[in-house]
Amino acid sequence: MADGVDIGVRAKARCDALGSPPYSEIDGQLTRRFLTAAHGAALDALAGWMAEAGMSARRDAAANLIGRYEGETHGAKALIIGSHIDSVRNGGRYDGPLGIMLGIDVVEALHRAGRRLPFAIEVVAFGDEEGSRFPASMSCSRAIAGTLDATALEMKDAEGVSVAEALAAFGGDPANIASAARRPEEVLAFLEAHIEQGPVLEAEGLALGVVTAIAAQKRLMVRITGMAGHAGTTPMALRKDPGPAAAEAILALERICRAGTDGLVGTVGRMTALPGAFNVIPGAIEFSMDIRAETSATRDAAVEAITAEIHAIAAARDLSATVTLMQALAESPCDPSLMGLLDESLADLGLPARRLPSGAGHDAMVMAALCPTAMLFIRCEGGISHNPAEAVTEADCALAAKAMLGFVEKLAANPLRPSRPLRGASG
Amino acid sequence: MADGVDIGVRAKARCDALGSPPYSEIDGQLTRRFLTAAHGAALDALAGWMAEAGMSARRDAAANLIGRYEGETHGAKALIIGSHIDSVRNGGRYDGPLGIMLGIDVVEALHRAGRRLPFAIEVVAFGDEEGSRFPASMSCSRAIAGTLDATALEMKDAEGVSVAEALAAFGGDPANIASAARRPEEVLAFLEAHIEQGPVLEAEGLALGVVTAIAAQKRLMVRITGMAGHAGTTPMALRKDPGPAAAEAILALERICRAGTDGLVGTVGRMTALPGAFNVIPGAIEFSMDIRAETSATRDAAVEAITAEIHAIAAARDLSATVTLMQALAESPCDPSLMGLLDESLADLGLPARRLPSGAGHDAMVMAALCPTAMLFIRCEGGISHNPAEAVTEADCALAAKAMLGFVEKLAANPLRPSRPLRGASG
Repeated sequence: MADGVDIGVRAKARCDALGSPPYSEIDGQLTRRFLTAAHGAALDALAGWMAEAGMSARRDAAANLIGRYEGETHGAKALIIGSHIDSVRNGGRYDGPLGIMLGIDVVEALHRAGRRLPFAIEVVAFGDEEGSRFPASMSCSRAIAGTLDATALEMKDAEGVSVAEALAAFGGDPANIASAARRPEEVLAFLEAHIEQGPVLEAEGLALGVVTAIAAQKRLMVRITGMAGHAGTTPMALRKDPGPAAAEAILALERICRAGTDGLVGTVGRMTALPGAFNVIPGAIEFSMDIRAETSATRDAAVEAITAEIHAIAAARDLSATVTLMQALAESPCDPSLMGLLDESLADLGLPARRLPSGAGHDAMVMAALCPTAMLFIRCEGGISHNPAEAVTEADCALAAKAMLGFVEKLAANPLRPSRPLRGASG
Repeated sequence: MADGVDIGVRAKARCDALGSPPYSEIDGQLTRRFLTAAHGAALDALAGWMAEAGMSARRDAAANLIGRYEGETHGAKALIIGSHIDSVRNGGRYDGPLGIMLGIDVVEALHRAGRRLPFAIEVVAFGDEEGSRFPASMSCSRAIAGTLDATALEMKDAEGVSVAEALAAFGGDPANIASAARRPEEVLAFLEAHIEQGPVLEAEGLALGVVTAIAAQKRLMVRITGMAGHAGTTPMALRKDPGPAAAEAILALERICRAGTDGLVGTVGRMTALPGAFNVIPGAIEFSMDIRAETSATRDAAVEAITAEIHAIAAARDLSATVTLMQALAESPCDPSLMGLLDESLADLGLPARRLPSGAGHDAMVMAALCPTAMLFIRCEGGISHNPAEAVTEADCALAAKAMLGFVEKLAANPLRPSRPLRGASG
């Protein structure tokens, strides 16, 4: 870069620069929710950096900030590089912003080299991936992909302010939100760089990974019902205690997922004994299950297996059990051709092309409705995210920027042939 | 009885008669807490029934109601028969009152027969066994046993009223509370009849049981600590999830207690995953353990075994665990000579002398500091208590009254030789 700072290193520094007010709602921590003044201040800073990098910046009706770097021909299809600028409450500095900053660095490098490509590059800062203000998430990428539900604008935050009201006050255009939707013929592909938010790359000593798919997920609630009783007066042989049954179920879920393939993971995050007193045998135990895998088939096989085991465990103890599906999300596979370009770019840097699924959701899964997508994962310390302790190294950020620049050049040299039919933008 | 009602049957009917206002604080349910108007109304009714049964009734400084039926000689040592008149919120009609009413029926039978014994009988209605108003329990039997802690009068209810204030307003004498303490030389023994509050007698088709001891109890809190993580991004092999470890611990506790003797029982009544979100691998699991047995030795061996297993389970999974003792109560054995008299009395009725421990606490465990104690358990439907559904049969109540009357006659014929040294009344 012109000022001697390595490509990617400045991206990290810019994330750090946005880590406190006015770019955070709260002093001493980073909380930057959708359509707050902190969000607006961050977009202003980004717009300035986009301009320095040779881009024209605009905000769309949904409060996305879009910087465009034209290609060899004006109005060419765009490669969109982006991620989200919002944060969870008291979050980290890199979850989201790093992908935007790396996009700006990549464009700045092209700009300084006077390099124009057969396609335009647009760097996008999505405004709402985390859903930390309104009871919805990824509404900005949904607006661009054309998949935003009409009711999304009616949702209200804790103060009773609707998305539409907040968006209008922010300078957006809720009445004209459909104008944010991009047509598939305008868009070549979508690339998102993001911290891994998991421990795999760190455990294997790798800086970068190529995402294969955003995992399919199911959330379920389990209730095992027995008979409440006095902890002192009910002999062991006369109990109908759902606690040990729940314990067997939790161990069964762990066993099934450990034996699984395709990145299968299963988590019991909530656990409640009812009524929940020291001296009362529980009448019921409720616990949650979050089950994910690269493919819906693998996920569903695991859900079926654990559900069958839960019913068998309950029956063996003369208890009853219900397993209720709360949410199901299909997997979002990344484009094989684009994955191949990322692999090659990593190889050029002397890095192994470690492929891994993303267990977490990302804007890329929404953008997949519009265009082929690719994701690059960046190692983060201890796999920690959604936490002020979130950390990345300058060296890894520099490698990420170089890998992305390599990807862009390879895409320019290899006209993209999407490996799968595109879904309609209005789906 | 004079009116043709079987002994014991009226006892049940009187419990039912006290099941609604003015004997309950709340219409439509039975809530009779210590030192409320409902408590006072119940004592007035009891005093009338005591007088009809040939007793002189008085209230002591601690709001105990004491009816005395003199023996052959005035001022003889007393056999105290009693239980508690207070209830939990929305409780049952028999937990406590039945033991008082049966005592009154027994005395009335003696009175109508013109029978005087070598000892007096006192029927006592303790005012506070449940601890449903103030943060203490059994304060009335403690006052009689001389073991009431001085700070007990300072405890306040949810409205900020102290025990001392409420007791004074009730007509008690908080400044002179020590006058309620009985001297060991005044008291021959204590007999308490109580619903079992458990399912053992019903399961075995038995009306009555002879209590061997009020169980020794320990309450412990366990915390197993791992590493919180993202439910989607952390592969199974890289997790430090305390949930499955807690599951193994819960199953180990069940296994240890099932294999135990001396009425060993262990209960996990509370269970919490922290932070407790669907999509977060818990960083820690906390759960309670309530472990009871007839003897402290059996209880402590179980506590040691489960504690060792918990540490081994945690270590095998590279987790840490703490086991914290919250409360320990020693067992309160019933007097073997008195148990023998109850056994004989049941045999006279053609009933097997089923001996069983009491897993629940009772006023008898407090009275054991003053005199030898005995307890008679009465079958209750489904083992249910602390619930409006609490139920006993008239036939069982009639058997209980006859067994108590038989016990009294056998005690009159067999001068009691306490089988164990008495504890001091001021301990």
